[in-house]
Amino acid sequence: MSVILRNYPYDALQHGQEASLKRRLTMKDIELFAYVSGDINPAHLDREYAKTDLFHQIVGHGMWTGALISAVLGTRLPGPGTIYLEQTLQFTFPVMLGDEVTATVRVKKKLRKGRVVMECWCANQHGDVVVKGEALVLAPQEKIERAAVELPDVELRPHLPSAPQRD
Amino acid sequence: MSVILRNYPYDALQHGQEASLKRRLTMKDIELFAYVSGDINPAHLDREYAKTDLFHQIVGHGMWTGALISAVLGTRLPGPGTIYLEQTLQFTFPVMLGDEVTATVRVKKKLRKGRVVMECWCANQHGDVVVKGEALVLAPQEKIERAAVELPDVELRPHLPSAPQRD
Repeated sequence: MSVILRNYPYDALQHGQEASLKRRLTMKDIELFAYVSGDINPAHLDREYAKTDLFHQIVGHGMWTGALISAVLGTRLPGPGTIYLEQTLQFTFPVMLGDEVTATVRVKKKLRKGRVVMECWCANQHGDVVVKGEALVLAPQEKIERAAVELPDVELRPHLPSAPQRD
Repeated sequence: MSVILRNYPYDALQHGQEASLKRRLTMKDIELFAYVSGDINPAHLDREYAKTDLFHQIVGHGMWTGALISAVLGTRLPGPGTIYLEQTLQFTFPVMLGDEVTATVRVKKKLRKGRVVMECWCANQHGDVVVKGEALVLAPQEKIERAAVELPDVELRPHLPSAPQRD
């Protein structure tokens, strides 16, 4: 029951065509994003600190929303075979713990030599746009249809003082 | 033995000031980035597919390098209290499995009202720039010095067919 990934080669892309992906931001996501990026900013991880911060609560990493956008580009539209060239991001609203974020990309302009400008944005469950921007991608030339590799299960456990902490 | 996070408030930031962070890209990082973003593009996860792809091997998620940049901004320069407003990214070279990537940010221009333009780039162990761009941040107003919250340990295990896979 694996997920099948399909792409839209350059010739099949249509102006205005859209694709999306929805994720609910959990504390596990925040901890994993901190682990994988090294971004241990207390605004994302430290509940006591976060109370004193601008937003008065834990907020997600802005770049997590950038990662959702890149996920839509790389898995749905144009999908596998896409080469990521450029991305702009404007962080317009914080993402709070528990928010359901929908990342959407839309074909804005087909350029020459396989290049495509994609409009990109993420919105929360209230419809607030939390990030917006544009991507420039090199769209795939050939149709690809392939079963996705299954991801491992991920388990978080309190850090043991004896074990080395990740740099 | 926790890490102490310190920031540079707007008034303390100096033109040309730099900070960096170095990470070696492991398969665990790639799997975690895929898990947390939903980006299961086979270019990052599927060794057989990757052989047929442009780069002929597994490459990291471009946005992982964006995440490293955001980590330097959020933890070192300006550090805690920074509000992320905008980021541009140009992906100039692929990141290969095992690459040691150094993310660096540099104060480019102090604007009015606490806003600062930061030059940002990541380079691999050969000195190739893999991503570059600029960030616009709202620098913190006050000095913050705080022990970082300890991250949990992260363990990956082959997915059990009986367990529900993440969407």
